[in-house]
Amino acid sequence: MSGRGSVVALCGGIGGAKLALGLSHVVPAKKLSIIVNVGDDFRHFGLAVSPDVDTVLYTLSGRVNPATGWGRNEETWRFMEAVGELGGETWFNLGDTDLAMHAVRTARLAAGARPTEITAAFARALGIAPAILPATDAHVPTVVETDEGVLPFQRYFVGLRCAPVVRTLRYHAADEAEPTPEVKAALNAPDLAAIILCPSNPYLSIDPMLAIPGLRYALATAKAPTIAVSPLVGGDAVKGPLAKMMDELGHARTSATILAHYGDLVDLLLLDERDAAEATDPRMAVAKTMMVTLEDRIALARACLAAADRLAGRA
Amino acid sequence: MSGRGSVVALCGGIGGAKLALGLSHVVPAKKLSIIVNVGDDFRHFGLAVSPDVDTVLYTLSGRVNPATGWGRNEETWRFMEAVGELGGETWFNLGDTDLAMHAVRTARLAAGARPTEITAAFARALGIAPAILPATDAHVPTVVETDEGVLPFQRYFVGLRCAPVVRTLRYHAADEAEPTPEVKAALNAPDLAAIILCPSNPYLSIDPMLAIPGLRYALATAKAPTIAVSPLVGGDAVKGPLAKMMDELGHARTSATILAHYGDLVDLLLLDERDAAEATDPRMAVAKTMMVTLEDRIALARACLAAADRLAGRA
Repeated sequence: MSGRGSVVALCGGIGGAKLALGLSHVVPAKKLSIIVNVGDDFRHFGLAVSPDVDTVLYTLSGRVNPATGWGRNEETWRFMEAVGELGGETWFNLGDTDLAMHAVRTARLAAGARPTEITAAFARALGIAPAILPATDAHVPTVVETDEGVLPFQRYFVGLRCAPVVRTLRYHAADEAEPTPEVKAALNAPDLAAIILCPSNPYLSIDPMLAIPGLRYALATAKAPTIAVSPLVGGDAVKGPLAKMMDELGHARTSATILAHYGDLVDLLLLDERDAAEATDPRMAVAKTMMVTLEDRIALARACLAAADRLAGRA
Repeated sequence: MSGRGSVVALCGGIGGAKLALGLSHVVPAKKLSIIVNVGDDFRHFGLAVSPDVDTVLYTLSGRVNPATGWGRNEETWRFMEAVGELGGETWFNLGDTDLAMHAVRTARLAAGARPTEITAAFARALGIAPAILPATDAHVPTVVETDEGVLPFQRYFVGLRCAPVVRTLRYHAADEAEPTPEVKAALNAPDLAAIILCPSNPYLSIDPMLAIPGLRYALATAKAPTIAVSPLVGGDAVKGPLAKMMDELGHARTSATILAHYGDLVDLLLLDERDAAEATDPRMAVAKTMMVTLEDRIALARACLAAADRLAGRA
């Protein structure tokens, strides 16, 4: 495997992080960069919270809560209980140990560090070897326009549990943001062998990255096959509001919609074996995309890389 | 007792909070205002920390850690452990439940609330009936000039454990600060019966309040006896760096120094019974100032009020 070259994955939180974990078992650490959505980032209690970055850090360091796919394992909630006792806001759960990420991040941002540097230091501290790269060091908050008004992402996603009907998504300030030098370098690596769009929600996790012009350009011009994994299985999302959002946005809940959405950026879309009948486009192939065990994650990672190898004529 | 009138106490953290607790057992809640030092306040991890206010809130609500006199009882430290794991700053301990105070305070400050309003809401939430009043809503950070340079208060006090030799104390911005309307109203109450300067460190806890011109003026012109309790017992402080600081500042470690320091603001200084031989000034009297049990706290509160009654000719 080590002869293949470098691999870049783009992901959001839970589902995407699972495939990133699989890739980390298959790709040599120095050859793997995981570009992570920061559109969900927000301030809570004045603390800088970066949910997808933290989910990737927790997942790749073996610290993620396996029951939820986000937050830390063996977490305690004494802070939140005390916040509730004081009449503070309890709609966004912050575990006692999870809080440390936000607190240290906040202190380092105030001291002038870039999110990329802070994330790299966290990855080192947690024993993670692949590069975990925020898509940008800029603040590009996703805003959800709904039938209940314009909502900051976390208010929609966590506070209102995605109940409002989505009309449009806006990736605020993304058009003025730059990908980081580290992201550009990863996508421009001379030995780049594969780009993988993880099975994350396209609208909430991948699009906020694609909305950064320089990142989209780097993806579009990258000299390696781009493999996307469909986040739909049997016309539904494994987790999260994707299916509901597709309905609300007027899109059929099919992998064809996903492929059309990514358009020319993607060379191949992997669908779950259960959806084999949907694979009518030459740019579609079938794999076991439902990841329950670590072996599932590793197998899907291998399937993505094998597909890229085939497209690149390496296999 | 309820016929006496209203009582105002001024205090810092641990020792002062103990007498404030005693007073809360003796003075009807509606007649008791506790004015608290905010010179120790600072931001840590971006969170607004107000150590003396929190110590008073924890002490009066029965939540204080009895072993330390600060922080919360039955506290856990998983946040701090996780901060350490990430390589963050661990010199200032923030317990998992204590963190809630700072987080909710930070959010409410950002929403435009005054520290006084926030403290009142915390007191209500914690079941505290007397008024807990920050001396000012302004930021008046104490700065310690030492032989190791000019240090922010918490860096000196907690970070360096008071090791540097103190040359001067500065109460930054205090001369431009105003006492709150609530503090002024308490000190100007028509039925004011006693003002009590708790046995807090004069330089670190009481002077930052006296450095606010409007507060000092209100104290100086208040129409009630002012009783101070000496923080020295046997020429030493019960807790904290007071004795060391008095040496460094060139002051004899005697209650006479304390009385001279407060000057005309104080009508009577209560010394511990062990220091009876020091009570050579007509403005000195003896009481049991060492507070070990709740009964000690209550007894000292009664002694303060009785002294004020005598001075006012009420007894």
